[in-house]
Amino acid sequence: VTQASQATLAVLGAGAWGTVLASLLARNGHAVRLWARRKQQAERINLERENQEYAPGLPLPATLVATADLRAAVRGAAAVVVAVPTQHVRSVAGALPDVPAFISACKGFEVGSFKRPSEILGAVQPRALLAALSGPNLAREIAAGLPAAATLAAQDAAFTERAQGWFWGEGFRVYRSADLTGVEVAGAFKNVIALAAGMSDGLGLGDNAKATLVTRGLAEMRRLAEHLGGHPATIYGLAGLGDLVATCSSRGSRNHTAGERVAAGATLQELSAERLTAEGIPTVRAVRDYALEHGLELPIAAEVYRVVYEEKPPLTALRDLMARAAGAEA
Amino acid sequence: VTQASQATLAVLGAGAWGTVLASLLARNGHAVRLWARRKQQAERINLERENQEYAPGLPLPATLVATADLRAAVRGAAAVVVAVPTQHVRSVAGALPDVPAFISACKGFEVGSFKRPSEILGAVQPRALLAALSGPNLAREIAAGLPAAATLAAQDAAFTERAQGWFWGEGFRVYRSADLTGVEVAGAFKNVIALAAGMSDGLGLGDNAKATLVTRGLAEMRRLAEHLGGHPATIYGLAGLGDLVATCSSRGSRNHTAGERVAAGATLQELSAERLTAEGIPTVRAVRDYALEHGLELPIAAEVYRVVYEEKPPLTALRDLMARAAGAEA
Repeated sequence: VTQASQATLAVLGAGAWGTVLASLLARNGHAVRLWARRKQQAERINLERENQEYAPGLPLPATLVATADLRAAVRGAAAVVVAVPTQHVRSVAGALPDVPAFISACKGFEVGSFKRPSEILGAVQPRALLAALSGPNLAREIAAGLPAAATLAAQDAAFTERAQGWFWGEGFRVYRSADLTGVEVAGAFKNVIALAAGMSDGLGLGDNAKATLVTRGLAEMRRLAEHLGGHPATIYGLAGLGDLVATCSSRGSRNHTAGERVAAGATLQELSAERLTAEGIPTVRAVRDYALEHGLELPIAAEVYRVVYEEKPPLTALRDLMARAAGAEA
Repeated sequence: VTQASQATLAVLGAGAWGTVLASLLARNGHAVRLWARRKQQAERINLERENQEYAPGLPLPATLVATADLRAAVRGAAAVVVAVPTQHVRSVAGALPDVPAFISACKGFEVGSFKRPSEILGAVQPRALLAALSGPNLAREIAAGLPAAATLAAQDAAFTERAQGWFWGEGFRVYRSADLTGVEVAGAFKNVIALAAGMSDGLGLGDNAKATLVTRGLAEMRRLAEHLGGHPATIYGLAGLGDLVATCSSRGSRNHTAGERVAAGATLQELSAERLTAEGIPTVRAVRDYALEHGLELPIAAEVYRVVYEEKPPLTALRDLMARAAGAEA
């Protein structure tokens, strides 16, 4: 790893993940601007040196400055880390001046276009370098100083290496990849499987059933990734399997929790009222629409879609998945 | 699945897994003889229609008869399911008359020979058909009636299909495979990774660190399996990834629990005194000896070995694993 010299970097989105990434970069000696959507939120972060709403207890270094001004946030930045919900990426990117590089920390597909976050960013700013960061990275744990590893993927090898140096630290190891497509498909699709795993846990089906879902889910993720041009090795790495396992084992992940709530009978309206906006919910709709149109068989995604959008009982959906015809496993 | 006609079947080993498998087979209408090592244990099982010591709460059908007489147990059996600790397979098999077929439900390598359970059985009885059953199968959950799936592998396709029918039921789905080597290597090696995952949990390193271990562990399992002639598809299926995820997520698995105890400073002597005989402990020794001799790089197995047998501090071992050189992940 090339230890990077001090850079100016912007992080868009002051949720848990955006705040933790901004703090990692600031601790590594970079000047970081953290964009928060609400002015009041930015002001509180600067006053309290902490994001009490989304990352309570994580002290934010003085080299991190929050702002609600998007243009001010990205001015002079060597790269812009995007950590907003996937469905907001297009509108946020559309409001930006030209920037040299984007690093997506988003995990989802855009409903309607079925675009990955870096594709949306690349469509809005065709000259920007594009990268994505993904892995088993529960924000809460990284904020607490527990060790983690992630994959950073970009098409430009020199940029990947530079960006790796920005994030690399004692407790956060970042590995390079050239498979931007695979890394983003994995990050998006794991949220769909996490919804299913949350439903299974919510219904008390146990660790055997959940491990079966994770196994079939990874095979389904691989199928989708290969169809879109991603590599199987990525699916079996930190951004695929690693992230899937962390998200499905943790009762703290949003998508897992949303699945548990759905199993308990919560409707989309209720989840929304609870501010439980899990990326898997729009993403499963985008995936299902795409799979239908292209004749792709993605049984777990299809069942999760039916439960979330068509009120199929989750127990029936999971039973239908477990009962799929016997035969050679592969 | 071909629903099997009634068969006589033997299960050797009245621990949790042997008892649960015997009960599944008996419920499917087969006449089952369950061999228990101690005569008193066999008598209690027959009297109480329950194995209170290892599978409390699981009612055992009258078609299941326990015995401490090995020859009586296997007499007339169409197949013998072996569910004893891997290090006992050779001595138990050596005491048997000729039988038509073995189905191994053991997960380990023999110390000294580095043989898989089916290899040991095949060496003792060269004319017997050989199969192995493996998957995400926490015995406690199956005993409680929760759904599970497994892989049954054998070289003989007709036998695989027949044996699949014996086990197949509403709550227990069995899928066929021809990769006996891959299925057994996966089952053995996952116990080594489960020890590492238990150590990580015991030290409170979190779900990100554990997911990273599972990811690297699966890559290491694949390397070992391919070296021994197994197929990567098996490693990514129920017997590989599925079993690994179930064992590592469950605080109820023996190997995970043994890892937690080791992290808390327990020595081999203490684990043994607690009757916490986890398959991973002899297996990691067998794997490490083999890896040394054949120049195979298996870093997780090497570190687990150092912790268990050479008293390396577990935190140092896990740190050394996390800190391995950055670079392209694959």
